[in-house]
Amino acid sequence: MNGAPDPLGALGATIRDRWTATRGPLFCDMYELTMAQVYVHGGIVDRAAHFDAFYRSNPDYGTHQAGYAVAAGLGPFLDWLDQVAVTDEHVNALAALRSPTGTAVFDAAFLDWIARPHLFDSIEIQAIDEGRVVHPHEPLVSVTGPLGAAQLVETALLNFINYPTLIATKAARVVSAARGGAVLEFGMRRGPATGVNDGVRAALIGGCISTSDVEAAIACGVQPSGTHAHSLVQAYLALGMGEVEAFRASAAAAPDGCILLVDTIDTLESGVPNAITVFRELRSAGHRPVGIRLDSGDLAFLAVQAALQLDAAGFDETSIVLSSDLDELTIWQIRDQVREDAPRVGLDPAAVLGRLVYGVGTRLVTSHGASALNGVYKLTGICDADGVWQPAIKVSEDPGKVPLPGPKRVWRLYDHRGVAVTDLVGLADETPLTDDENVVHHPVQAGVHKTIHRSDIAQIEPLHRPMTPGRTDVAVDELAARCRADLERLDPGVQRLVNPHRYHVSITDPLHRLRQDLLARIDA
Amino acid sequence: MNGAPDPLGALGATIRDRWTATRGPLFCDMYELTMAQVYVHGGIVDRAAHFDAFYRSNPDYGTHQAGYAVAAGLGPFLDWLDQVAVTDEHVNALAALRSPTGTAVFDAAFLDWIARPHLFDSIEIQAIDEGRVVHPHEPLVSVTGPLGAAQLVETALLNFINYPTLIATKAARVVSAARGGAVLEFGMRRGPATGVNDGVRAALIGGCISTSDVEAAIACGVQPSGTHAHSLVQAYLALGMGEVEAFRASAAAAPDGCILLVDTIDTLESGVPNAITVFRELRSAGHRPVGIRLDSGDLAFLAVQAALQLDAAGFDETSIVLSSDLDELTIWQIRDQVREDAPRVGLDPAAVLGRLVYGVGTRLVTSHGASALNGVYKLTGICDADGVWQPAIKVSEDPGKVPLPGPKRVWRLYDHRGVAVTDLVGLADETPLTDDENVVHHPVQAGVHKTIHRSDIAQIEPLHRPMTPGRTDVAVDELAARCRADLERLDPGVQRLVNPHRYHVSITDPLHRLRQDLLARIDA
Repeated sequence: MNGAPDPLGALGATIRDRWTATRGPLFCDMYELTMAQVYVHGGIVDRAAHFDAFYRSNPDYGTHQAGYAVAAGLGPFLDWLDQVAVTDEHVNALAALRSPTGTAVFDAAFLDWIARPHLFDSIEIQAIDEGRVVHPHEPLVSVTGPLGAAQLVETALLNFINYPTLIATKAARVVSAARGGAVLEFGMRRGPATGVNDGVRAALIGGCISTSDVEAAIACGVQPSGTHAHSLVQAYLALGMGEVEAFRASAAAAPDGCILLVDTIDTLESGVPNAITVFRELRSAGHRPVGIRLDSGDLAFLAVQAALQLDAAGFDETSIVLSSDLDELTIWQIRDQVREDAPRVGLDPAAVLGRLVYGVGTRLVTSHGASALNGVYKLTGICDADGVWQPAIKVSEDPGKVPLPGPKRVWRLYDHRGVAVTDLVGLADETPLTDDENVVHHPVQAGVHKTIHRSDIAQIEPLHRPMTPGRTDVAVDELAARCRADLERLDPGVQRLVNPHRYHVSITDPLHRLRQDLLARIDA
Repeated sequence: MNGAPDPLGALGATIRDRWTATRGPLFCDMYELTMAQVYVHGGIVDRAAHFDAFYRSNPDYGTHQAGYAVAAGLGPFLDWLDQVAVTDEHVNALAALRSPTGTAVFDAAFLDWIARPHLFDSIEIQAIDEGRVVHPHEPLVSVTGPLGAAQLVETALLNFINYPTLIATKAARVVSAARGGAVLEFGMRRGPATGVNDGVRAALIGGCISTSDVEAAIACGVQPSGTHAHSLVQAYLALGMGEVEAFRASAAAAPDGCILLVDTIDTLESGVPNAITVFRELRSAGHRPVGIRLDSGDLAFLAVQAALQLDAAGFDETSIVLSSDLDELTIWQIRDQVREDAPRVGLDPAAVLGRLVYGVGTRLVTSHGASALNGVYKLTGICDADGVWQPAIKVSEDPGKVPLPGPKRVWRLYDHRGVAVTDLVGLADETPLTDDENVVHHPVQAGVHKTIHRSDIAQIEPLHRPMTPGRTDVAVDELAARCRADLERLDPGVQRLVNPHRYHVSITDPLHRLRQDLLARIDA
């Protein structure tokens, strides 16, 4: 993919520019602006502050819940942060906003502040790379900067990372269910309008090998996928020709990439036999037919029956592409049924399973069953008038909603098998696991702690690294490779589609004590 | 909103330009392009063809299902269709795409075709206006044009209308549950990345009166909403001040639009009393405080208790804004509980309900429970070599998936009360209900028919009208008014949130007979 020819690279860059430009500096919730005005008036708009973006629980699809998530969206956010600029047009518009009584919402002091050149330049970001496996309660992105500017980026940052992380996670699950079978992203038509492009990029990070969305494919450096719809067969039928003529025309236009959709009339009685006729013609002409696509009916039954016909005709190497409301559970069920059914008709189940390809559309790009990630952005500290950092906290009736105070870092601990066993969240100036025995705490539940023995840990990997605003030169396929590498080091139990084993996220003792002190101070 | 000052109008136009530009001519599924190449080779790429976009069932949220939908997304599609242009950069990129064996995917004949200037200019569109109430099986958008061009717009059209229609529908339901209480759209942070702007526009069409998304608000000509987050109170606490100082600072920055978030420490013990302190100061200074916001806990209980405190302090006109995972069912339940609880503490329930405002975020902009609309785009006819229209059909094991053939129109029938009773789908050249007794058929179920007496129908409204590509000059608030007007003429039973009465969509006898003839011809 890095060796994409230049015309594709050039258009890809143009498309990514447009994607970035579609979100301007006022791509934010109104309250970011009204709060910034309060800070301007209070003389604290340039006070240094820390914020953390994190999420509280893995996507829960109702009948099943993810055991992990896959971080996505940071790259486009960093590109936006570098490009975005407040112009006179924005300032004039903000100056024109009126309260219900007709007074100006924003005053001159605020407008002077937001019109400052390089408003976001002094923001510093520590974050976990895109494509990494991540877990609840750990800061995915930590922002340090002047209070007003660091507050202002809240909504954009959450918007840039919440949905893509949700979709990269769903994609990783679908890919996991496919057990090595290729997964193609097909969700453009029912996805969330322009958001579908963000979703496609995330799906590629999560492990889809291609997408039907041509612009997104070119922008992300992959080959787009797709052959023909029912309408092609319908058109030939309406013009008095047959399905075989439609297939022949399709094959002639793409002799080396021929995939035929076989369910327009009757899959087993018409579609597959006609496909075989055309495949024979292709083979005679020296081409290798690629496969068929099934888009309705009992996909497991039809896949086995189609394989039987294709094998009998000598096309045992063609793919069988499945589509139609697929997700991780339907793929799991289809594969399970194929495993049962194939031997009954004398087929090797592994051979049938090995030729399946999955076109996954709506349910991937909308994260069917869990349509949002509950990511939040919380103030964790602010400098006082003397330049001393003061940690910030928020109390809540729900202990799961008390954020972790202070500037923090995340370390991933691997055991001697190379398996990730715990993510440890501590204060930024800590060196983790300096003792033989280290008491760590549950991130939420009071009184729950355990001891980590340094000798059990083979590797301590810092997950945060400083991020520079600007366009990344890391290709999407490299992000996908990062995701695969993390999944290889994640316990299979944590990756289980249903009822996964819970991955441990712990906080260090110093962080735990800081939070307890702050809570005690508020209670007092 | 039409009287917005010019700086807002100017920025709004800039933002809408960027929204349109973010989708280029290759914003399509790959198979649209490969099919067009087949049509170029077959010499039928310029053959006139009809396609219909329609959806098959109303959004089903699992425990409840919508009884109707609200059309949205057509305006931005028409703008895109007018603006989009294939450039050399696109042609060069397409020419660079390679099949798995390394051969070019697209040949010179296809590239010549797609490089034609004004590719989409001869497309004609008949459609139902944005903001109208719509129903399953009726063509929302009918496209007539050269086969290749009319096929090529499929994915973009579906992408432009499916998600916005889904969100406008959800918004109309949420607004219905609020029974006149204002609904504000707050979903930007967890919405589908850039798609959130499309969602906000649709939510405004469906009846939300404002949004927190500043860019989308300005683009749509409404005033953005929002005051402050927990982080403002947290910052003041971390700096050694109290909640009341935070509220005072917030009030000072927006004395005429002051809404205070009261749940950072303890809603009833700290937040509301501190808000009342600051409201008194505002009143002394000649300002009218707007209200408080509750964002956690038992919102119904807290709203009643907060109302009690506010009334006792003489602030019985302040609003109580509720937020936190609201949707149509939670709003219904909250209002029900307030109705029960308010009299127990001596409050007039109508007065409490009348001051509630609803900030609805994630669950609106992701259409919680039904994350996609099942809209499709089907070939319904094509001209043969002699210029004679040939209707197209697709058979399916599922009768609900057999599309209605031929070019069609939709008429809405109103009874003598002015209530819409049936949407009638017929052939484009028909005049509906010419007889006293008119047999009409179920759009899907074979053998189900009924008789419509002309005398029972007071008005026959054609819903389709020709649409011209280009930017619409209809403001979003006019689209919202259209939606309200349609809902006023829709049976309340059809609008019921749970288990709605089924609205009748029927097809005319000539359309029914055409479909039966075509099916018989394929069976033969």
